[in-house]
Amino acid sequence: MKTYREELWFETRSRREFINITPRVERALAASGIREGLCLVNAMHITASVFINDDEPGLHADYERWLEKLAPFSESSDPARGGYLHNRTGEDNADAHHKRQIMGREVVVAITAGRLDFGPWEQIFYGEFDGGRRKRVLIKIIGE
Amino acid sequence: MKTYREELWFETRSRREFINITPRVERALAASGIREGLCLVNAMHITASVFINDDEPGLHADYERWLEKLAPFSESSDPARGGYLHNRTGEDNADAHHKRQIMGREVVVAITAGRLDFGPWEQIFYGEFDGGRRKRVLIKIIGE
Amino acid sequence: MKTYREELWFETRSRREFINITPRVERALAASGIREGLCLVNAMHITASVFINDDEPGLHADYERWLEKLAPFSESSDPARGGYLHNRTGEDNADAHHKRQIMGREVVVAITAGRLDFGPWEQIFYGEFDGGRRKRVLIKIIGE
Repeated sequence: MKTYREELWFETRSRREFINITPRVERALAASGIREGLCLVNAMHITASVFINDDEPGLHADYERWLEKLAPFSESSDPARGGYLHNRTGEDNADAHHKRQIMGREVVVAITAGRLDFGPWEQIFYGEFDGGRRKRVLIKIIGE
Repeated sequence: MKTYREELWFETRSRREFINITPRVERALAASGIREGLCLVNAMHITASVFINDDEPGLHADYERWLEKLAPFSESSDPARGGYLHNRTGEDNADAHHKRQIMGREVVVAITAGRLDFGPWEQIFYGEFDGGRRKRVLIKIIGE
Repeated sequence: MKTYREELWFETRSRREFINITPRVERALAASGIREGLCLVNAMHITASVFINDDEPGLHADYERWLEKLAPFSESSDPARGGYLHNRTGEDNADAHHKRQIMGREVVVAITAGRLDFGPWEQIFYGEFDGGRRKRVLIKIIGE
């Protein structure tokens, strides 16, 4: 069995952003030399997501608006005013911890014949919900 | 290490449907000859889900109503009218891309002694949110 | 390839609870002797979650309030009165089946140099949404 590990680093300028990381995962896979196995890609931070969906800017704008509706940003730490208790820690990113639960922490992708075994439209995204900080994604591939 | 790959094909008549695929995953596992390892089951399309929950029709009807509330169907591409920008691409399935994020793309199941290592009520479902098209689920098993 | 399997048992007194199980997963990993691979941790019951986020009590209270808003508890089986058809089975836990879909069934964690390969704040939680019953989490590790 072979294993391969690589970190991707991000520091987005905007608070929220979706970045297509498929090419970087493909390069990691090529570097691994693994032909058959599983590839885990996960956010190493708890206010970010890794997910698979469409590379379509309209959809990404829809996601952002939708997530803001499901878990609105608030600086407040008072739930009665739409705030979050988590913000008592001095952070203002409680909404990001919620958005990340909707979009997910990780994806596991099959590796077949040395390729990401994807359907026609599957692309891997890094979803940043509390940007402006240096953050990482982990790629771990096992197989042979 | 052994690996096994199989695709399941679906073409639902209705737009939304939940299909119990546990027996088909069990047959793939038997065909693989793998006794210990991990089994990835994922939708290969981005308007469908694979998830694990209860095989109970009332719950499935509840899920459908709930998902419709969280991410309502709309043909419109105007967010001000409850539409989605994604529908500007000519599709009317933006809601399906949202529903799939709630229910998830994939499950990873432990394989122990040649069986899906499940609790008493765990069953694997294909969740279709934009049916009437031919779509696939990928099963990838690694182990020995 | 090595594999390792362990069950964790829970019986919470309260209906809903978040329990940090990271130390127990670390002990399982040490017992496995596996240095490189993947670790699956999943709820074996369909009204519970395993997820990764912050070990911060304010955030957990936020999550509980948020999940109650997205999928409110109801004993009713009448959707017109905010109930769930699933409760016709005699259960009153339909909301728990919904909350678990938001928070997820499982996490897959990379194993590197004999450790859970985590970012600075990642911790693994068991999320109980229908407690007062004996329930299990499965740990399955594969690698070498």
